[in-house]
Amino acid sequence: MQAKTPEQSRTVMTDLVLPSETNPLNNLFGGELLARMDRAASIAARRHSRRIVVTASVNHVAFNRAIPLGSVVTVEAKVSRAFKTSMEVYIDVWIEDRESGDRAKANEAIYTFVAVDETGRPIPVPEVSPETELEKERFIAALRRKQLSLLLAGKIKPSQASELKALFD
Amino acid sequence: MQAKTPEQSRTVMTDLVLPSETNPLNNLFGGELLARMDRAASIAARRHSRRIVVTASVNHVAFNRAIPLGSVVTVEAKVSRAFKTSMEVYIDVWIEDRESGDRAKANEAIYTFVAVDETGRPIPVPEVSPETELEKERFIAALRRKQLSLLLAGKIKPSQASELKALFD
Amino acid sequence: MQAKTPEQSRTVMTDLVLPSETNPLNNLFGGELLARMDRAASIAARRHSRRIVVTASVNHVAFNRAIPLGSVVTVEAKVSRAFKTSMEVYIDVWIEDRESGDRAKANEAIYTFVAVDETGRPIPVPEVSPETELEKERFIAALRRKQLSLLLAGKIKPSQASELKALFD
Amino acid sequence: MQAKTPEQSRTVMTDLVLPSETNPLNNLFGGELLARMDRAASIAARRHSRRIVVTASVNHVAFNRAIPLGSVVTVEAKVSRAFKTSMEVYIDVWIEDRESGDRAKANEAIYTFVAVDETGRPIPVPEVSPETELEKERFIAALRRKQLSLLLAGKIKPSQASELKALFD
Amino acid sequence: MQAKTPEQSRTVMTDLVLPSETNPLNNLFGGELLARMDRAASIAARRHSRRIVVTASVNHVAFNRAIPLGSVVTVEAKVSRAFKTSMEVYIDVWIEDRESGDRAKANEAIYTFVAVDETGRPIPVPEVSPETELEKERFIAALRRKQLSLLLAGKIKPSQASELKALFD
Amino acid sequence: MQAKTPEQSRTVMTDLVLPSETNPLNNLFGGELLARMDRAASIAARRHSRRIVVTASVNHVAFNRAIPLGSVVTVEAKVSRAFKTSMEVYIDVWIEDRESGDRAKANEAIYTFVAVDETGRPIPVPEVSPETELEKERFIAALRRKQLSLLLAGKIKPSQASELKALFD
Repeated sequence: MQAKTPEQSRTVMTDLVLPSETNPLNNLFGGELLARMDRAASIAARRHSRRIVVTASVNHVAFNRAIPLGSVVTVEAKVSRAFKTSMEVYIDVWIEDRESGDRAKANEAIYTFVAVDETGRPIPVPEVSPETELEKERFIAALRRKQLSLLLAGKIKPSQASELKALFD
Repeated sequence: MQAKTPEQSRTVMTDLVLPSETNPLNNLFGGELLARMDRAASIAARRHSRRIVVTASVNHVAFNRAIPLGSVVTVEAKVSRAFKTSMEVYIDVWIEDRESGDRAKANEAIYTFVAVDETGRPIPVPEVSPETELEKERFIAALRRKQLSLLLAGKIKPSQASELKALFD
Repeated sequence: MQAKTPEQSRTVMTDLVLPSETNPLNNLFGGELLARMDRAASIAARRHSRRIVVTASVNHVAFNRAIPLGSVVTVEAKVSRAFKTSMEVYIDVWIEDRESGDRAKANEAIYTFVAVDETGRPIPVPEVSPETELEKERFIAALRRKQLSLLLAGKIKPSQASELKALFD
Repeated sequence: MQAKTPEQSRTVMTDLVLPSETNPLNNLFGGELLARMDRAASIAARRHSRRIVVTASVNHVAFNRAIPLGSVVTVEAKVSRAFKTSMEVYIDVWIEDRESGDRAKANEAIYTFVAVDETGRPIPVPEVSPETELEKERFIAALRRKQLSLLLAGKIKPSQASELKALFD
Repeated sequence: MQAKTPEQSRTVMTDLVLPSETNPLNNLFGGELLARMDRAASIAARRHSRRIVVTASVNHVAFNRAIPLGSVVTVEAKVSRAFKTSMEVYIDVWIEDRESGDRAKANEAIYTFVAVDETGRPIPVPEVSPETELEKERFIAALRRKQLSLLLAGKIKPSQASELKALFD
Repeated sequence: MQAKTPEQSRTVMTDLVLPSETNPLNNLFGGELLARMDRAASIAARRHSRRIVVTASVNHVAFNRAIPLGSVVTVEAKVSRAFKTSMEVYIDVWIEDRESGDRAKANEAIYTFVAVDETGRPIPVPEVSPETELEKERFIAALRRKQLSLLLAGKIKPSQASELKALFD
């Protein structure tokens, strides 16, 4: 399988914040944004792998900025790195001001998907070949996150998490 | 107000076809697609005008190709022409094959939006300055559609519909 | 197959405008109304044909009057004319004032449906036999709309659109 | 206030059973039907009273017949009797066979609504003047149901439930 | 089959009242609460029977207290009595004050479910063995409600409704 | 403010997996589960703080086990630790087998919420006083996760993340 660039899996989902999706402060519910990001990220993972994909994990997601009712929200997802059968997808969320048209970053998130066959068994995916500076940075950090994830799940020991360990030396 | 290009209002909404949105043949419901196109087109009209916008009319929409459950559907909307306070938005809908990644045109649609102030009164919008061949073609045809719309609504007489009349001479 | 009257396919869908279906001006979203009209019209087409039906096209729809949150909306659909395997459905939308009970026309729309068998292939439907003055008027105009539709889709030439051409002579 | 006939509040809501509304046997969920009947009945109560109305109680509802996915369901609601500020609404639910067009009764239900002012306080409503045999029968039985309701809620004693008591003598 | 206690089928569903679920007074729609209670009650019936279950009827439901937007609502369902293939489920609904944390009873409801096999045929369920005072009280009253239900449906005569008749003697 | 136990904020949300919430493998969508967990966790945070709460971040969530259509899913959320104005909420998700009644752990998740006043400004919350072994373990680990979160966000240096650093020594 030939490697693919993050651009090849890039998925853009622009939509409104509808009244049914808001919390008591009239901002988009965290849960609704998590669901939208999951749909966009799953499409990116599918474009990378051309397989059925299922959500394996959600890594750190920070909600830095409230997203008010009526906002235009753009969710942009790209596969940042692949590990045999799994793909890390990096998601950027933007909102734009109606009057000025300015875009502001609302938050970032990282999801992991696994490619599966029709019976649900994991199946290999192409590697990722990053192009831009940002894509390269995210590609490298993905390994650190992978180790962190395995460490938190108790699947490797601290001593095996070489990338993480280096941080503290 | 300075004219804007269709590219400046371009809005992309990529999403899945979920089980709750299908008809008895397991394809996307026409009504659900109409609603998605309305949301995408309203964002394009808002990006062009930087105003609150409301749907004024839906012009001809043809559903040429069924969109099966699980498809990835991309709705792409651009303002094709502006008339004082109203904007014609041209919408292209694509589906992509999971295995080959090929994209196929599912249908086209044309919606018209009006820009309004906080009290709901119509308010002027910038003109459209088309760039590509396709954008220019759609810009010209928009006037024909506008006359057709006024004619069907009984607001002008056949003799005033100069663009249409020319077709039959 | 015996012809049927528009009354035989008449479908009435009265429902509320719920908070989840409104735009920033607190009126019913255009897209939501398009979806309701599609469901009502598909039932009318099904009652006429007693077949599975799929949306083929949406003809001109004008949103003349905003429909506020909490309104009672009545969507009424009747098959106005049949062409071999397709049916034109005419839809009238009414809102009623809670205090006076008065009904006002909110908008009209025209959808076209095709009857299909279990495999999705088009299948013939009964003809329409209009009864009232309004039904007869809509029956006649349907042919003009049909030609217009074929003309816009490039499937016939202006010279073949006899009904339309007559308008401009 | 002048009495109104049940016909004057008659509300018809015809709609499809969508895939998102079905249980594991592929039939319409009881809960979804209860919600549809509530919306239709609230419109009937509003048409009778021309007031804001709120659901006060649901009386006996029997689900006699499963309603399969893809069915056309007609919910028909009429105010059957009024008691000062409250209205009993009688609801009939029909499904129709796509091929034969035959209608079959799926179930009946009885809801009670109260008319309120903008602050939520109960406010008097017109009386009901039944016309057909069935409307008269339901009008009479409504008093029996009212006593039963008060009895079950412990608001009257068995000896005060004159209509009910007569049944057992 | 061994009898089960109501505690064994106890089902708790705590959730928010979202903006999409409210009526014009900004309180939870009756229909939405009916749907939530149906889902919770069906889980209780399923836990009691370990079978597929379908809603058979809704007995008296009184909406005593409006439930405002943003409330935390707890629906608690327990099987109160079983009759061969059917189960009466008693539902208590609570809302809690955000600031004080106090819980208040919003309403009670009674639904009846039938256990069925994969083809939809009724199938026997275990008996209920009540433990607390309240559970015993509800167990006894269930027979009275059962007779009432049969009586209203015309399936037994007043003279056969021994439990009810006793009330009026 | 007096400390509260995790038990005092415990929130249980038991519900079905409906057809509208499933992916192409007929299992619950990751995004839908993320949204349910967000609602349950926000109620737990609100019970702990008695304030309006907003989602601040989602920490690691692993989807270990697919949740099939028709499953009964129980989401259980408890505040595991508080930091001035923020609360870590630990969520356990269980599914149960209809026939055997056995419960299996489907996944765990950790969300962080911030308590805010009516204007959206952060406001202090009570401390958490863990009782069971598991609650104590999660309370201690919460500090490690907090440092990890600050470290990943670049708000502290590796040398300041004392709890994490200890892991690698």
